[in-house]
Amino acid sequence: MKRITVINGPNLNLLGTREPDKYGAETLGSINARVAAEASRLGVECEFFQSNSEGELVDAIQGARESDGIILNAGAYTHYSIAIRDAIAAIAPPVAEVHISNVHAREDFRRVSVIAPVCRGVIAGFGADGYILALYALSGATPGH
Amino acid sequence: MKRITVINGPNLNLLGTREPDKYGAETLGSINARVAAEASRLGVECEFFQSNSEGELVDAIQGARESDGIILNAGAYTHYSIAIRDAIAAIAPPVAEVHISNVHAREDFRRVSVIAPVCRGVIAGFGADGYILALYALSGATPGH
Amino acid sequence: MKRITVINGPNLNLLGTREPDKYGAETLGSINARVAAEASRLGVECEFFQSNSEGELVDAIQGARESDGIILNAGAYTHYSIAIRDAIAAIAPPVAEVHISNVHAREDFRRVSVIAPVCRGVIAGFGADGYILALYALSGATPGH
Amino acid sequence: MKRITVINGPNLNLLGTREPDKYGAETLGSINARVAAEASRLGVECEFFQSNSEGELVDAIQGARESDGIILNAGAYTHYSIAIRDAIAAIAPPVAEVHISNVHAREDFRRVSVIAPVCRGVIAGFGADGYILALYALSGATPGH
Amino acid sequence: MKRITVINGPNLNLLGTREPDKYGAETLGSINARVAAEASRLGVECEFFQSNSEGELVDAIQGARESDGIILNAGAYTHYSIAIRDAIAAIAPPVAEVHISNVHAREDFRRVSVIAPVCRGVIAGFGADGYILALYALSGATPGH
Amino acid sequence: MKRITVINGPNLNLLGTREPDKYGAETLGSINARVAAEASRLGVECEFFQSNSEGELVDAIQGARESDGIILNAGAYTHYSIAIRDAIAAIAPPVAEVHISNVHAREDFRRVSVIAPVCRGVIAGFGADGYILALYALSGATPGH
Amino acid sequence: MKRITVINGPNLNLLGTREPDKYGAETLGSINARVAAEASRLGVECEFFQSNSEGELVDAIQGARESDGIILNAGAYTHYSIAIRDAIAAIAPPVAEVHISNVHAREDFRRVSVIAPVCRGVIAGFGADGYILALYALSGATPGH
Amino acid sequence: MKRITVINGPNLNLLGTREPDKYGAETLGSINARVAAEASRLGVECEFFQSNSEGELVDAIQGARESDGIILNAGAYTHYSIAIRDAIAAIAPPVAEVHISNVHAREDFRRVSVIAPVCRGVIAGFGADGYILALYALSGATPGH
Amino acid sequence: MKRITVINGPNLNLLGTREPDKYGAETLGSINARVAAEASRLGVECEFFQSNSEGELVDAIQGARESDGIILNAGAYTHYSIAIRDAIAAIAPPVAEVHISNVHAREDFRRVSVIAPVCRGVIAGFGADGYILALYALSGATPGH
Amino acid sequence: MKRITVINGPNLNLLGTREPDKYGAETLGSINARVAAEASRLGVECEFFQSNSEGELVDAIQGARESDGIILNAGAYTHYSIAIRDAIAAIAPPVAEVHISNVHAREDFRRVSVIAPVCRGVIAGFGADGYILALYALSGATPGH
Amino acid sequence: MKRITVINGPNLNLLGTREPDKYGAETLGSINARVAAEASRLGVECEFFQSNSEGELVDAIQGARESDGIILNAGAYTHYSIAIRDAIAAIAPPVAEVHISNVHAREDFRRVSVIAPVCRGVIAGFGADGYILALYALSGATPGH
Amino acid sequence: MKRITVINGPNLNLLGTREPDKYGAETLGSINARVAAEASRLGVECEFFQSNSEGELVDAIQGARESDGIILNAGAYTHYSIAIRDAIAAIAPPVAEVHISNVHAREDFRRVSVIAPVCRGVIAGFGADGYILALYALSGATPGH
Repeated sequence: MKRITVINGPNLNLLGTREPDKYGAETLGSINARVAAEASRLGVECEFFQSNSEGELVDAIQGARESDGIILNAGAYTHYSIAIRDAIAAIAPPVAEVHISNVHAREDFRRVSVIAPVCRGVIAGFGADGYILALYALSGATPGH
Repeated sequence: MKRITVINGPNLNLLGTREPDKYGAETLGSINARVAAEASRLGVECEFFQSNSEGELVDAIQGARESDGIILNAGAYTHYSIAIRDAIAAIAPPVAEVHISNVHAREDFRRVSVIAPVCRGVIAGFGADGYILALYALSGATPGH
Repeated sequence: MKRITVINGPNLNLLGTREPDKYGAETLGSINARVAAEASRLGVECEFFQSNSEGELVDAIQGARESDGIILNAGAYTHYSIAIRDAIAAIAPPVAEVHISNVHAREDFRRVSVIAPVCRGVIAGFGADGYILALYALSGATPGH
Repeated sequence: MKRITVINGPNLNLLGTREPDKYGAETLGSINARVAAEASRLGVECEFFQSNSEGELVDAIQGARESDGIILNAGAYTHYSIAIRDAIAAIAPPVAEVHISNVHAREDFRRVSVIAPVCRGVIAGFGADGYILALYALSGATPGH
Repeated sequence: MKRITVINGPNLNLLGTREPDKYGAETLGSINARVAAEASRLGVECEFFQSNSEGELVDAIQGARESDGIILNAGAYTHYSIAIRDAIAAIAPPVAEVHISNVHAREDFRRVSVIAPVCRGVIAGFGADGYILALYALSGATPGH
Repeated sequence: MKRITVINGPNLNLLGTREPDKYGAETLGSINARVAAEASRLGVECEFFQSNSEGELVDAIQGARESDGIILNAGAYTHYSIAIRDAIAAIAPPVAEVHISNVHAREDFRRVSVIAPVCRGVIAGFGADGYILALYALSGATPGH
Repeated sequence: MKRITVINGPNLNLLGTREPDKYGAETLGSINARVAAEASRLGVECEFFQSNSEGELVDAIQGARESDGIILNAGAYTHYSIAIRDAIAAIAPPVAEVHISNVHAREDFRRVSVIAPVCRGVIAGFGADGYILALYALSGATPGH
Repeated sequence: MKRITVINGPNLNLLGTREPDKYGAETLGSINARVAAEASRLGVECEFFQSNSEGELVDAIQGARESDGIILNAGAYTHYSIAIRDAIAAIAPPVAEVHISNVHAREDFRRVSVIAPVCRGVIAGFGADGYILALYALSGATPGH
Repeated sequence: MKRITVINGPNLNLLGTREPDKYGAETLGSINARVAAEASRLGVECEFFQSNSEGELVDAIQGARESDGIILNAGAYTHYSIAIRDAIAAIAPPVAEVHISNVHAREDFRRVSVIAPVCRGVIAGFGADGYILALYALSGATPGH
Repeated sequence: MKRITVINGPNLNLLGTREPDKYGAETLGSINARVAAEASRLGVECEFFQSNSEGELVDAIQGARESDGIILNAGAYTHYSIAIRDAIAAIAPPVAEVHISNVHAREDFRRVSVIAPVCRGVIAGFGADGYILALYALSGATPGH
Repeated sequence: MKRITVINGPNLNLLGTREPDKYGAETLGSINARVAAEASRLGVECEFFQSNSEGELVDAIQGARESDGIILNAGAYTHYSIAIRDAIAAIAPPVAEVHISNVHAREDFRRVSVIAPVCRGVIAGFGADGYILALYALSGATPGH
Repeated sequence: MKRITVINGPNLNLLGTREPDKYGAETLGSINARVAAEASRLGVECEFFQSNSEGELVDAIQGARESDGIILNAGAYTHYSIAIRDAIAAIAPPVAEVHISNVHAREDFRRVSVIAPVCRGVIAGFGADGYILALYALSGATPGH
């Protein structure tokens, strides 16, 4: 049975209350539940983690190095955390970088991701659905795969 | 019934023979067939178009302005075609930008997308599966949507 | 009798339906008719051309090299087409660069024109009237000229 | 009756004697007379002002805040006077930025206008005729307007 | 009764012993006491928090989202923590950014604040008095307010 | 008795009528009166000066070189007047740089202050209250000072 | 027998009439004839193609993927066509980039070639002789080769 | 007896398993043991600390302010942690910056160290031996010192 | 008899009292007297002007257009006044740019002179002697000239 | 009889032993012999010079100012020696810049040539054959020349 | 027996007399003697070379290509000599880059080393001891090596 | 008796024959004779040196460290020789940087002098007279000095 770790970074614990027009009204708990249900349907085991701390996220990525893939929304750290980048590069499982909003249509500094070059791929702008799409991508759930 | 247009840009007609280690061994015809089959399963009608010409791609995007969404892999034009960007901004349907390889892990000039800011979202690095994920995203095929 | 060629670039065929708050509700056909009428009053012969393709615009500019002036709205190509720039530099008639909106008040990339240095002059921000102003400028219709 | 203020900035008082190959042999007095005559024909009242001082130009723009439009050639201040930009933004009438030479074909620092983003539009490169074209644009004297 | 949270970031716990010529000889405890006394005089309730950890500061800002204002000296994180910026943007209370030294007169990298654009305002260079001034600003204690 | 000079730069004479949503509805006269009253309460003598001219502001700063401090809102000159910077550096009294709006949340060019490095400190974004806060800072009116 | 394809890009069809002091008085037809004659002497078969359209040039490069080498003067596209770059990278035959004028001695934007990194080599500044030199280089006609 | 603190930053706990071709096969435990043995031979007392958290590293540097020197491999934080830089500047003992790999031969962003300007010196590229060399440098163990 | 105009810009009226370690203890009056005496010895007539206003300096340069040369220390305006640059370019007499201190050894922004390209030459770093050297250069007083 | 000077710069004396996969296995002596033989066949006299010293290369270029052309491979100095550039500009004979490898496909700093703007043309990427091609170009040995 | 070459570049012959506060009071002769003594103790043979000439340093590096390692302080050439970089890359022995002062704490242009990417490692800021540490590193004299 | 050393750099030995419109028709020998004569009149002893080699110029500057001043025209090395800069900084006598042409009115790369910050001052644009002016400046020959 495949195991996927879903890791969310700073301020994502505020989802649902924080700028709902930009990030939607769904809470992180609800999104995680939706991912867990779909994962269960696909026979994939999911673990969930959130932290506002860069160091704890590095710990979590290292801790997931036996899993089959990581879905990572590193929030603001996406744009400057070389420590997270190095953690991803140091482990074997593929990482799917997810963003709820279309970061490319926002401030300039959100268009640079220092972690994207060491990820398997990036999904951005499709709201909370991006987590589901990443689940499909990492678990090989697309047809003809 | 929803209608989705799948538009591929320059050199993607060479898929399967061109640098297979980077772009995979599957031809564009085979990918399109896979997308068509899955679309049919979801009750979505698909049209397919490919051109090496920037102007013809602008024509095609304009021509799809009555569809319910566009899956666009603009190839090299992604990085400098403001004309394609303007065409996307000028029409109503949402556009999902797709890249087969992880453009963020390649040359610097491939990390800039001039069209991303006017697209709904971006999916990159998951190989040909990206087209399927985009289909799910644009047709609302994710669970709980 | 003087002859002026009016050339419009990508996405200008959508005028009237595309973002009317930015580009106005007048279609390209209507603008052209207005230019033709005023040109006729001034005893100037006008030809009109539109294309979304960079190569066809280069062809059109080369094709107008026997005319007495070109009114050119190169659309998005304004900002990166050195091919169009070279075509202008390669022919004799003066070229008036026209933009409907005030490109200086929009995105940064729209503030750079690679063709302006080889044009006679630039008129921007006065809506469709800019074409008429360019006609006056190229045909010497200002008083005391 | 409409009222238009024509404001010229530093060194434009030297027109006619200063580098005639670049700026033409016509003096500012002669240009103003030509503008006044054409304005009179259109039933528009014109006032004229020139100064080499940035502060006095700010005063003049503020002083014209009851007029129906300003034709402004800010000369060298075009490229760095945020004070003039703020004055324009602070008042209601539309401002037409005029340049005698094609500033885009000259030194790099002349290609940047800090005031253009708050102007209605820009006319450059058509010599002294640019003032007349601006008069037409601000007074609605183009056909079909 | 109004409630204000005073948050200090990395190395500010060393105040008084660290480079006294630059940061003064007053300890953070003493500054906080002075702020508390003046707040009490104004009928404002104050809470104080300090941490060297970026994640804990994000936690603290989120935790203060029911207060009436935050006085924040983010120390070195001022210059690169988009996570703190996002936390500020995600909550409602106004934030006053405070710096003890005049950061504009020091190294270049200290002249950039990534959090200033989402703060209500900035006070810098007036030593520990800056905290008092911020208290006045957030509690409406200036005359005629 | 302490003497403070309050100097305002270009376009600040328009306060109250100019973009009230950005700069507030209070006129400069009213702000000055409020500062004068509070200064009188603190036993501080105030002089007020406003000009749109860079040279006159340099004169005014030089003229205030016997005062005990200068409150300076240099308006647009803040961003490029090295002449004003040099005038500040040439005299002894401390200068408090004040901005009504949060310049850090506006256009990029407003985020650079060439005069801040030679000022005592900066207060920005607290509206007209900023002048009062600067008065407190320069006159030592904060508690425990 | 070796086969070489000679591909010329935008505005090169104007050779001989366009700025003869910069590009020489020889027409493209005459250059091609000279290349054909020398190729025939070396026992090399040549094909010739010219287009002003980026897309058609991509088509032509793809179409030449069975030849033994391509002599390519991409004209203005040299400086920004990543699509042409990708086409070259997608095929096997070596490409010799040729320029008639010394592009390094002209405008800055002509000093950047986005296609050079995927070509075998570059020859620039030797006029139409550059095509002959490229023919020698690709066909191994230098002595001791 | 001299006391030296050896501080290692993010991901260095993975040494030995992480990209051994780049960082060697030796674990951090083994390196520390080697340093401790050599220190003991020189009569130097050593303490060892590792964390993935920026804030905890700031705490550790502050905590070592009574020691005689710090050997610091800040890992990825080297390139952007101004908080760590400020902590070093705030304390007295000299800090030797150590890197296992030659950071100058890797990605561009690894060539910038924001902490080097406040360190005593830098040793990079000599593998785990770098820690020993730093020990010699800080304890004055070179001959003729 | 030759006529030379000596023009000094902003804050140079403070010479002698302003930062004497950088600019020397000699007043502008004393320097001017020294220049006048040496000019008289060489049979050259001198006029002197100083202003803090950019516009008045432009007026003065225009007013000196019948003289045989201008010695100009534009002070801070040296670094950004394109208006002064244009005034110099608009008149015939050669201009010698003088700086008392070695501007190249100070802040970066003082290393750029926007007026130097239109001056005959530059003399910097030799204190008030620079005015005398400029007088020699403009009046042809060097031996063998 | 024509005379051509062949000048090679730093480290080219190591050809054959230095990174043969990049620069080929042929020594400089062998290349020179091949050039000499072909030159003799064309009736051209050749001289050869190599040095690792920038100053000696300047001397050699000055010393060749009576020849009919210079073939110059300046090696690393290509990228920064303005002294060599000035030497080329100071003499009359045309200079052909040659590089063995395709410098455009290597490190960024090798893509800039400070000498190319003052050379007749550039040949790069065709191995040692580049010297022969340059000989043809400078001696007019192409057909129909 | 191992052989190490110690190469010093421009101005290092002035050590001891040149800015002793920055570079120490020890002469190069004394440093070399100290290195020779320690090398002798380790059974390593040392050669020493110094020159102010870039070309002679290239010669020396090439000449040391049979040694077992090079200790190189390239002085100012460190920051721009691609010729020295190429010489290092062209030979086999490892090179240890040494700097006496902490170049990272000085002018910006001293923070860039163009030779570091092709060296084995870098040691900077530990004074003349750096040469001894480099000797240890290159000769494997650290414990447990 | 004062002693001044006059040092000229690369290509200045060609003065008189090299681009006379830019550098004048006078040879270096003639300039030196003129300087020697004027120096003799002032009771100053002069030595002259010229070389095309950067290393020899460093040697010459070091060799002049007992003189009373150096007049240095470093030619092209002005723009990039940090080695020459370090040599100047390492010795005591003041250095006057001289340029024959106005380097500020030429190519951009000639506007940067890496040696100016360590020189006493700069004289540029006054032709060969610049050497005489530098002699006056270094020997204190201006009146009232």
